[in-house]
Amino acid sequence: MDNLVFQTDFGTMDGAVSAMYGVALDVCPELRIFDLTHEIEPYNIWDASYRLIQTVGYWRKGTVFVSVVDPGVGSTRRSVVARTKGGHYVVTPDNGTLTHLKRLVGLEEARIIDETRNRLPNSGESYTFHGRDIYAYTGARLASGTITFEEVGDPIDVQSVVELPVVDPELRDGWACGTIDVLDVRFGSLWTNISRQMFLQLGIKHGDRVEIRIDNDTRTLYRNIMTYAKSFADVYVGEPLVYINSLDCVAVAINQGSFSKAYNIGTGTNWHISIRRLPDNL
Amino acid sequence: MDNLVFQTDFGTMDGAVSAMYGVALDVCPELRIFDLTHEIEPYNIWDASYRLIQTVGYWRKGTVFVSVVDPGVGSTRRSVVARTKGGHYVVTPDNGTLTHLKRLVGLEEARIIDETRNRLPNSGESYTFHGRDIYAYTGARLASGTITFEEVGDPIDVQSVVELPVVDPELRDGWACGTIDVLDVRFGSLWTNISRQMFLQLGIKHGDRVEIRIDNDTRTLYRNIMTYAKSFADVYVGEPLVYINSLDCVAVAINQGSFSKAYNIGTGTNWHISIRRLPDNL
Amino acid sequence: MDNLVFQTDFGTMDGAVSAMYGVALDVCPELRIFDLTHEIEPYNIWDASYRLIQTVGYWRKGTVFVSVVDPGVGSTRRSVVARTKGGHYVVTPDNGTLTHLKRLVGLEEARIIDETRNRLPNSGESYTFHGRDIYAYTGARLASGTITFEEVGDPIDVQSVVELPVVDPELRDGWACGTIDVLDVRFGSLWTNISRQMFLQLGIKHGDRVEIRIDNDTRTLYRNIMTYAKSFADVYVGEPLVYINSLDCVAVAINQGSFSKAYNIGTGTNWHISIRRLPDNL
Repeated sequence: MDNLVFQTDFGTMDGAVSAMYGVALDVCPELRIFDLTHEIEPYNIWDASYRLIQTVGYWRKGTVFVSVVDPGVGSTRRSVVARTKGGHYVVTPDNGTLTHLKRLVGLEEARIIDETRNRLPNSGESYTFHGRDIYAYTGARLASGTITFEEVGDPIDVQSVVELPVVDPELRDGWACGTIDVLDVRFGSLWTNISRQMFLQLGIKHGDRVEIRIDNDTRTLYRNIMTYAKSFADVYVGEPLVYINSLDCVAVAINQGSFSKAYNIGTGTNWHISIRRLPDNL
Repeated sequence: MDNLVFQTDFGTMDGAVSAMYGVALDVCPELRIFDLTHEIEPYNIWDASYRLIQTVGYWRKGTVFVSVVDPGVGSTRRSVVARTKGGHYVVTPDNGTLTHLKRLVGLEEARIIDETRNRLPNSGESYTFHGRDIYAYTGARLASGTITFEEVGDPIDVQSVVELPVVDPELRDGWACGTIDVLDVRFGSLWTNISRQMFLQLGIKHGDRVEIRIDNDTRTLYRNIMTYAKSFADVYVGEPLVYINSLDCVAVAINQGSFSKAYNIGTGTNWHISIRRLPDNL
Repeated sequence: MDNLVFQTDFGTMDGAVSAMYGVALDVCPELRIFDLTHEIEPYNIWDASYRLIQTVGYWRKGTVFVSVVDPGVGSTRRSVVARTKGGHYVVTPDNGTLTHLKRLVGLEEARIIDETRNRLPNSGESYTFHGRDIYAYTGARLASGTITFEEVGDPIDVQSVVELPVVDPELRDGWACGTIDVLDVRFGSLWTNISRQMFLQLGIKHGDRVEIRIDNDTRTLYRNIMTYAKSFADVYVGEPLVYINSLDCVAVAINQGSFSKAYNIGTGTNWHISIRRLPDNL
């Protein structure tokens, strides 16, 4: 018996998530179910993909994730279960939700959900809540061992699994250049796709001062100098800092403030961030 | 041992829900407890009733629901446990929370909670938190088998269980007329009380165009034509649609937009919605 | 095996809490984990302390609480596990989070977490997420019996555990004077530090009228007369009342309204509240 972990953009204000729990526990009363988050911004597939890469690795092999951010419910988008190279399963619409796991962890195998077998009995007239009728139901059957991975449905080429466009970070003229992938929402920090390894190639050490530049398409929204700190406690309250976040990537924050609110910074592939070591003559 | 499911309007910002969990687990450490939602709008008994009808049926028979939206705490309102005809239990103040279950599923039996036996020991001086001291405690005792349903207290006439006023939907001059019961909050869809069966009596098929009219008391807030779609994916992004929701009733939405925000639509028995098949000459 | 209960200021919008769950369940798959709240206002140590005193006593002895409100992550602040005189454990940064438990329940023993032994393996390069790498990991090891309390690390003098400044309530010239400690956020009630025992020394009975005065530093924000009610149902909807809250302290509210919003009342040691029995000649 493996654990089941739910992620959706449904919120918890109504009964949708609870109905998913009920369906899963009806498949197997002993199942243990947990929540990743239900507060993904509605329809934001990118964030769903990112929250998976942020957490999946901390769960045991065999854990089954059900992720339902599904703007195309009822369209021809496929419903799939993927097994990652780390040994985790993800049950999801094939709409880009697997982008980060596919690129950064790798997918071992993927199968299309055969809805003739893996659909909640008597749910045939509902076309809008596959989270309950297909994904929670199939996830619960897989996690509980009611079906094997093979019984999910036919295998598909993992290369065909849909990916959202991603811009890779790179070193250029002494700058590390990347994108702002996501916010640490509650604390207003910017999380970039620049890895610690790439950042350290700039020859920067804790306590050094670095130059940061943030551009949204053609406009520069921020250009300033700050400290590369080991953690928030190394700078004053209210002071900005660059640090390595809990995903081992470069992040930018204001100690006990909100960087994203202070400078109206958003996320996505057209939010560019560049970092360089401060030249000695500045 | 049956599962326990909590619903309240307490939110999860403070320790109230956690205290309920602690009390229930002290009754029986092995008990499994789940949340329906704790974000019912404060004092909104109607929504509490609706969220129960939305979810109860997806849980196993024997599951014990504890619903605490209790503006009358400390008044003479009764505290009851009802057993539905579907075999689920609901522990709640008798203030209308059982309205939809009573009307749509039916109540098999109901009992008043005997507080001389079913009240958290040493909680006698607190008159404001029956959710913890009476409802969670009694629900946990019932779910764990510590007490039988009979030991809850004396039976009452199920007809005496309090109901909020409801306006039944009806067919009138070629229109299906009902009320907007509730919002799918996060997506801004309107959920009506017009059932699929009634709607289909208008002779409407997927892809047909229908006329929708929304009135709040005497004022018309919306009158327009849209498609009856199988699901959101059948219309353009930004286009309105009529569809059958996951409760098998008629709903109105904007694909990836918020209908309720777009036209300032609310919920309740004075929010009327009428639907008809578009006459051939239009 | 004891239960594990999490409290943080992380919110549940991203994957942080889920990563903590994953780490804890990897320590011990059978562990049962619950949430106190994850919506403590960012960096608000006072509220974290208060929510613990509000709930800990309702959980079984041996329950392990992990509380992570940690503005000083990465500083020299200590990481500790305290055992209360009630037999509960709290794993937390030593930054004032234990203030109320230390004062009102008492700490039996406290130990510094030895991070050479009690830190998630291979988490050495992350300096910003001790909630996952140290606190959840250590809490799970303690709750599951993987380590004993002694194996947490060296004992410290419980008197050295950090306390936030507190102003004790007192009787003065016929007034009970205290501070507004916290809000019942969703209902807008003011929760004071004036105990029922102290309040009753004023000779007040249910139904009596009392005078309330609220001052923020030198400014009086509210001075008026209201009823001391057993519960909300004893006054009209919209009427203010004084009552004894679920922590057995004096609270002030508007029935079905928000007192804190109505008069812009905040919380903390410079929010003073005074209550007296209404003199007979008024």
